[in-house]
Amino acid sequence: MIFSSKLIEDAVNEFSKLPGIGRKTALRMVLQLLRMETEKVDGFTNAVSKMRHEIVFCEDCHNVSDGPKCDICTNPGRNRNQVCVVETIRDVIAIESTQQYSGLYHVLGGILSPLDGIGPDQLNIGTLVARVKASGIDEVIMAISPTIEGDTTSYYISRQFAGSDIRITTIARGIAFGGELEYADEMTLARSIAKRLPIENYVSVQSRQ
Amino acid sequence: MIFSSKLIEDAVNEFSKLPGIGRKTALRMVLQLLRMETEKVDGFTNAVSKMRHEIVFCEDCHNVSDGPKCDICTNPGRNRNQVCVVETIRDVIAIESTQQYSGLYHVLGGILSPLDGIGPDQLNIGTLVARVKASGIDEVIMAISPTIEGDTTSYYISRQFAGSDIRITTIARGIAFGGELEYADEMTLARSIAKRLPIENYVSVQSRQ
Repeated sequence: MIFSSKLIEDAVNEFSKLPGIGRKTALRMVLQLLRMETEKVDGFTNAVSKMRHEIVFCEDCHNVSDGPKCDICTNPGRNRNQVCVVETIRDVIAIESTQQYSGLYHVLGGILSPLDGIGPDQLNIGTLVARVKASGIDEVIMAISPTIEGDTTSYYISRQFAGSDIRITTIARGIAFGGELEYADEMTLARSIAKRLPIENYVSVQSRQ
Repeated sequence: MIFSSKLIEDAVNEFSKLPGIGRKTALRMVLQLLRMETEKVDGFTNAVSKMRHEIVFCEDCHNVSDGPKCDICTNPGRNRNQVCVVETIRDVIAIESTQQYSGLYHVLGGILSPLDGIGPDQLNIGTLVARVKASGIDEVIMAISPTIEGDTTSYYISRQFAGSDIRITTIARGIAFGGELEYADEMTLARSIAKRLPIENYVSVQSRQ
């Protein structure tokens, strides 16, 4: 693409660096910003700049935070006996958006992946163990993707609590809502039969939604 | 979506205002910016802010410009006898990117649309007529979308030059490269037969690409 304006070109180049944004989409965004009032564009750039400069990570759970401790860790209404272990902050947002969980979180910052050089020391596992031991947490919920690396990570973490009274659980695996049985992989289908639930559980989940 | 950080939420809200960006895509961009170095994010916000604050419109052709006259109008290498009339600055970028045109442009800022209250006075038509009369321009190329409003606009503009020696042309219409005849609409197909070209023309365009 050839631009007659360096200002437009620079802005398009910057937008193109974002994930999934090609040059045509970037141009569409830039032309939209060009049509917007100056104050609104300032609002956009200020929000982005402020977000990047002021955001910190919660010293307890490693979630993104506006202060030293995040809104979830400081919320007196949350259940302080449960901690949900997730891979990234995106998982926190996903679980929070379901409005089905009222406990605390712990963001690992990744999963064990020896091929990528990510071992237990690269993840927030040590702080999890220390945090659980120092507090009244009695259940650690593993909400890690059910891949080989994810299962390895869940297993590794559960071993850290071996011999203690901490209950280690994992999110349910099975056929997704709206999913069709014939397209489910054998492993998922097999586990969903082996770990079948009384139908009342299913009905109660539905009615809570 | 529920965010535990107001900073993230504000940034996601701002991105969601851009065209074609839903909240999930906005979140992906914000998390990407969060992973980027602070300097790179500053580069992004500065480019956007500078673009919006410093861009002006060329006083000759109404294209976006970094100064009072745009890079195309001030380029001594351009053919000053041709002016290509387009609807928006996006069309200028599209035509420039083909690298097939070396003349000047004139951006109308829209097309005639009585239903939307857009008449000749809302468009940059007066400046086009004055510009053509005051300069050595001898060809006005209409590069307007072939819709009813577009054709009306082309016709209206061509009438402004009635009785003068100015040559008024329009971009070729026909079957798009790679298009299939059976899916072409009747009007396009009929015109492409009526306005058929010697095959040498077609070959020479191909070899220039």
